[in-house]
Amino acid sequence: MARSPSGESVLERVVRILEAFTPEAQVLGVGEVARRADLPVATASRMVADLVEHGLLTRESTGRVRMGTRLWELASRASPTLSMRELAMPVLEELLRAVGHHAQLGLLDGEEVLFAERLSAEGAVVNYTRIAARLPLHASSSGLVLLAHAPGDLQERILTGKLARFTSETITDGAELRRRLADIRREGFVLCAGHLHLEATGIAVPVRDETGHVVAAVSVIVPNDDRARGHVPLLTAGAREIQRRLRRAVGEADDIGLIE
Amino acid sequence: MARSPSGESVLERVVRILEAFTPEAQVLGVGEVARRADLPVATASRMVADLVEHGLLTRESTGRVRMGTRLWELASRASPTLSMRELAMPVLEELLRAVGHHAQLGLLDGEEVLFAERLSAEGAVVNYTRIAARLPLHASSSGLVLLAHAPGDLQERILTGKLARFTSETITDGAELRRRLADIRREGFVLCAGHLHLEATGIAVPVRDETGHVVAAVSVIVPNDDRARGHVPLLTAGAREIQRRLRRAVGEADDIGLIE
Repeated sequence: MARSPSGESVLERVVRILEAFTPEAQVLGVGEVARRADLPVATASRMVADLVEHGLLTRESTGRVRMGTRLWELASRASPTLSMRELAMPVLEELLRAVGHHAQLGLLDGEEVLFAERLSAEGAVVNYTRIAARLPLHASSSGLVLLAHAPGDLQERILTGKLARFTSETITDGAELRRRLADIRREGFVLCAGHLHLEATGIAVPVRDETGHVVAAVSVIVPNDDRARGHVPLLTAGAREIQRRLRRAVGEADDIGLIE
Repeated sequence: MARSPSGESVLERVVRILEAFTPEAQVLGVGEVARRADLPVATASRMVADLVEHGLLTRESTGRVRMGTRLWELASRASPTLSMRELAMPVLEELLRAVGHHAQLGLLDGEEVLFAERLSAEGAVVNYTRIAARLPLHASSSGLVLLAHAPGDLQERILTGKLARFTSETITDGAELRRRLADIRREGFVLCAGHLHLEATGIAVPVRDETGHVVAAVSVIVPNDDRARGHVPLLTAGAREIQRRLRRAVGEADDIGLIE
């Protein structure tokens, strides 16, 4: 791929420009894009114009730019993240109705959990999760479930690395984390009371594909009180239903050649 | 931006490669990517490798590639499409519960309606809508609502262009379409019985921003029978609730500087 005089590919710069846009900074001036992407303003300006021309960014009447609908469409319509989310959706809706706070679907991506969906009721308890945003593996219920079933090398990196503290309840000790991961594999769920915010409890269970491999975590966030544990059976049943739908979808995809 | 010997920018080629992936073709070999993107196999192969390196595509163990989670994340986390969808979500869930088939949110994009969300009940009536997929403006209930409130030049292009037929009920006559658009502006909703599929009725109403500008269509798809019309008041109330949430969000975004 074509490289700039600095030896950097065009694609690298495109990715850096797209990375400049976040949930907190959805609309940016070109100067701000340049600063965040660490590019000269003239370069950023030229590349932004090109991205706008292709619909990947949209220019507002003020001259500032934001993520383009075309990019969302291209990234979403063939996305495995969205496919998994569509499969899980009826179950998440059922869970939301039952618990009345938050129901969500998390996927392991790199060394974090990435949320493919979050459904929330009005007036629900505090929740840091956002769709297409990430949380650390050791601190969130979804993350702990995914970490408990992750490859050994990833587990070791997290267990021996720095475990950031969010509240007095966050697990920040490697030995304790190792024990909790073993508990999760044995018990089939995790309940995190106040790990990310003292007022909230996260409960998560694994979702497995037809080979038994854990492919997602389904979770609910509820108030941190004595009733939280009562949601575990519902969540376990929900995960089983997602697994049933996943197996059916894999069968159908086989039929039309989507999966080899 | 850097151009190939053919004068085409790298970005043009990246877009063509991303466009190769569709809901029906989520996993592709490099040869198939090259064919769909109309690129030499060597070029496609090099660009796919670069896209995989940046996480925008993912290579499976078979060597075939699919849309990358990273691209979905970047495109989604700062997307106005997703923001609008999150605002509308509680209302769509309420509508889904009430009608028991499909509830959806459509946005005008170019000369088509692009669906930001589709929620469906188990065993619901047939529905061609998919998330991040498109339908023609003249043939879908959401499309008709958006077209009724679209700029005049877009209306004229559609009214004087070819109006594709899907069923015996599709509006394919320009003069009839013009009358229907006036009806929609007067009545505030559209009911399309069998326009896309004879078994289904689409009902759509406009969603307006704080200036009165129509920014979306909210719709339900139900069986084509006498009960369909009874859902109109519910849908109208749903649109009002989305408008209320939209105004509140604009106020909050003003406060943190998201919107000028």
